Amino acid sequence: MKALEDKIKREGTVLSTDILKVGNFLNQQLDVPFLMEMGREIARLYEGESVTKILTIEASGIAIATAAAVAMDLPVVFAKKSRASTQTGGMYTAAVHSFTHGNTYDAIVPTSMLSPEDRVLLIDDFLAHGAALCGLLSIVRQSGAHLCGCAIAIEKAFQGGGDKLRAEGIRIDSLACIASMSPTDGITYRH
Amino acid sequence: MKALEDKIKREGTVLSTDILKVGNFLNQQLDVPFLMEMGREIARLYEGESVTKILTIEASGIAIATAAAVAMDLPVVFAKKSRASTQTGGMYTAAVHSFTHGNTYDAIVPTSMLSPEDRVLLIDDFLAHGAALCGLLSIVRQSGAHLCGCAIAIEKAFQGGGDKLRAEGIRIDSLACIASMSPTDGITYRH
Repeated sequence: MKALEDKIKREGTVLSTDILKVGNFLNQQLDVPFLMEMGREIARLYEGESVTKILTIEASGIAIATAAAVAMDLPVVFAKKSRASTQTGGMYTAAVHSFTHGNTYDAIVPTSMLSPEDRVLLIDDFLAHGAALCGLLSIVRQSGAHLCGCAIAIEKAFQGGGDKLRAEGIRIDSLACIASMSPTDGITYRH
Repeated sequence: MKALEDKIKREGTVLSTDILKVGNFLNQQLDVPFLMEMGREIARLYEGESVTKILTIEASGIAIATAAAVAMDLPVVFAKKSRASTQTGGMYTAAVHSFTHGNTYDAIVPTSMLSPEDRVLLIDDFLAHGAALCGLLSIVRQSGAHLCGCAIAIEKAFQGGGDKLRAEGIRIDSLACIASMSPTDGITYRH
């Protein structure tokens, strides 16, 4: 998605060869009209797939998942990273290691929210090593739902998570796919 | 908002006189078309207030804030509950006690995302004791921005947070305001 590639170059900051900061439009400050554009692009990619539910993970996946859900007229379920006192009943859980925060947590979804009848689209803001996405994939498998694919805003292809999953036959669509990046040389996209 | 009051009665579960579970449409599974209706109602309430930015807190505030932002064509900023490796530069922080999770955390917003020129609308899914909202109010004060008011999906009025803030002159709009609730007697709304 050319508009996203341009926006990353214009408004993002490459902090190192690993870390891209896009907190000013995607992660902490949300450029909502632009998110809606991304949501419409995801809707276009998954047209005809009869998706019944979008699954994401808190926190920064929620906004882009909501934007796609508006375009697709679907509900969103997001995996939580801790159990609240209001959560009761059976849960699907999957251990996820966060490279950004340097910890491991359980992604949690109530069993009542995903069933074998669902056709699920996974959405997240970033795909790097694929840790969060693998957790969500495990939850979909546990539920018996059909996986339609994974839509990602920004894939850091050089970290390998996306290609590992593609090799397993999983459909991955990244709106912007970064082949390499550095603070001095900038960003190269893969098309 | 009558549609929300009815939906809470129909789809919510009163677990105790303190705890209302609405995870199936507001907190973890998101009824996005309905969220958009709530977003339009918030837009109507704050029409003419020249809001420049919506501020909320991760995670469950993000979806309703995004819905309102779509209706108002505004950016959203959300406070994070922990600092990621991608966060650099100055931060506004405020300590918040979570009654739901039984812990205390820092709500964090980069100083670059709120300035004295901003006119801020706070949005959150729940208002109970007001802990999270007080944290966001502290961040707005630190930034020097103007506070237009606070829009809340569900206020549990009997827990007192909303009325304490109203007594301080802060504008609070709750789409549904619960006067009392119990698993046996159900929900009574305040109008």
